[in-house]
Amino acid sequence: MVTSIRSPRVRAARALAKRAMRERSRLFLAEGPQAVREALGDRAGHGAPINELFVTVPARSRHAELVAAVADTGAAVHEVSGEVMVELAQTVTPQGLVAVCPFVDVPLSALIAAQPRLVAVLANVRDPGNAGTVLRAADAAGAHGVIFADASVDPYNSKCVRSSAGSLFHLPVVVGVPAADAAGALRRAGLAVLAADGGAALSLDELERNGRLDGPTAWMFGNEAWGLPKELVAVADDAVRVPIYGQAESLNLAAAAAVCLYSSARAQHGAGQHGVPLRPADALGSHHVASWPAPGGSPDAAEDALPADRGLHPRDPGRRYAEVPG
Amino acid sequence: MVTSIRSPRVRAARALAKRAMRERSRLFLAEGPQAVREALGDRAGHGAPINELFVTVPARSRHAELVAAVADTGAAVHEVSGEVMVELAQTVTPQGLVAVCPFVDVPLSALIAAQPRLVAVLANVRDPGNAGTVLRAADAAGAHGVIFADASVDPYNSKCVRSSAGSLFHLPVVVGVPAADAAGALRRAGLAVLAADGGAALSLDELERNGRLDGPTAWMFGNEAWGLPKELVAVADDAVRVPIYGQAESLNLAAAAAVCLYSSARAQHGAGQHGVPLRPADALGSHHVASWPAPGGSPDAAEDALPADRGLHPRDPGRRYAEVPG
Repeated sequence: MVTSIRSPRVRAARALAKRAMRERSRLFLAEGPQAVREALGDRAGHGAPINELFVTVPARSRHAELVAAVADTGAAVHEVSGEVMVELAQTVTPQGLVAVCPFVDVPLSALIAAQPRLVAVLANVRDPGNAGTVLRAADAAGAHGVIFADASVDPYNSKCVRSSAGSLFHLPVVVGVPAADAAGALRRAGLAVLAADGGAALSLDELERNGRLDGPTAWMFGNEAWGLPKELVAVADDAVRVPIYGQAESLNLAAAAAVCLYSSARAQHGAGQHGVPLRPADALGSHHVASWPAPGGSPDAAEDALPADRGLHPRDPGRRYAEVPG
Repeated sequence: MVTSIRSPRVRAARALAKRAMRERSRLFLAEGPQAVREALGDRAGHGAPINELFVTVPARSRHAELVAAVADTGAAVHEVSGEVMVELAQTVTPQGLVAVCPFVDVPLSALIAAQPRLVAVLANVRDPGNAGTVLRAADAAGAHGVIFADASVDPYNSKCVRSSAGSLFHLPVVVGVPAADAAGALRRAGLAVLAADGGAALSLDELERNGRLDGPTAWMFGNEAWGLPKELVAVADDAVRVPIYGQAESLNLAAAAAVCLYSSARAQHGAGQHGVPLRPADALGSHHVASWPAPGGSPDAAEDALPADRGLHPRDPGRRYAEVPG
């Protein structure tokens, strides 16, 4: 049992709270049973997504099966005191589990090679909670990748990892690419590049009505406060606004991204309005049926529910396209 | 100039940070130029939405026109020191303006009497940021009212006011009604009551495809972590899940609510897939064209942009139905 916050192991893990240290080691912290489970889910037959696990005694008994599964992969499991956990955890009420995981991002070329049909590009998104929420919404909408471009927040920031609710481990993430370069590469790969822009003449509904969301699409989303810079809007195939039916000046980033990405998902899966259902969503046998909110009726059930389908490897987007042939 | 944080006026305003004090006086604080502007927007000919305004000297010169407009309504304007503003403001970087406003909520009967076609019901939503974000998304989607039911957070909580981005002043809000009672009243008024529920057999896309979102609809959304209790799902006409196309276990509340409400908006405005556009969105001349993100290209522009249309009175939902006759 590690009881000293000065233990070299604990200090090395704690250092990963800083971006510079994460980038040096290409390691980050995933906190709580959900994140650990999602990281582990990846493990089955693929790579080594957990290097070390720090766990308190109560958490070990609460999540015995999960901790045993982590240990089975060969990852080092360290029991730590509550005091050490408080040092390691980034949350106010630590859940007793912190994993050290290798970075999961992939090069842009790998994402492109997997022939993605739905991609989100975050340009200058600064708030880690927002970025994680968009990542989660992109995952839910079946996106095949998310690009953290330009001066966007680090996806391995603990708050981003947490608000992604495991989605960081589900779909390919690309970091450190200029948004304009990403847009160019995606367009060359046959995706329509759409800039979400409040000042656009074209509305999302119009686009959907005209069947223009049916094909492979990359959505670019800008900063929470000031949107996309003109230069990025200019490199897109189209600028698109989310229509405002009421009196709000705008939607917040995560809500706007969810609406745009779900419009694409619906169109690509054949529920769009243009009248020709290409692939009714219900015909896709391998679909996840999980939905919001997590079924179960209690916070514990939601927290502890295992994902229904672990058959697809999250970091191998190519496997997922079987569902939606181009 | 008020320079003492012990001034009775400042102390009375500060006390409004507490829910109990707000409820006693039926007053709350709206902070920052956007919220003050939205509160004022309401004023034109209707009621007295600002009682008092506290403003720093720099903020007064930065927002001279706004402060003058508030003063013109007869509201008391107090210049305060930066120190007093820090005491009054709930944000880390106060923007120099805090207004004391009377509660804006309306009785459930008033909302019903206005024949709403799209309503959101929040049941046990505890996080003020989430609740405000849903309120903003409901406003953007053209909802005619939001009900803060059961043990939901107080809509006048400063974080909720802030994350609503002015929407608290745009559409009727009802508080303190049990969700089941609200559902019953809405159903009797002819609205289909839909429960957003991750465990539901029926998916949102299916519902939309079948034209079942075209009529007046009330959406019930549950707690961030554990969703809607079974008893509330049971009182709904249908339980509906947001389909998950990827591997996410669920969407977060605000994203799910945005997707559901926008599906309703699209269906009601005729962009739904069932093939008969009832009222193309673009034919609605009085529509707001504001969108996400706010046009302008800079945070200041977004912050300072005046809403394009102040002709409709936010707290008089009846006026808005002219756009979408039942």
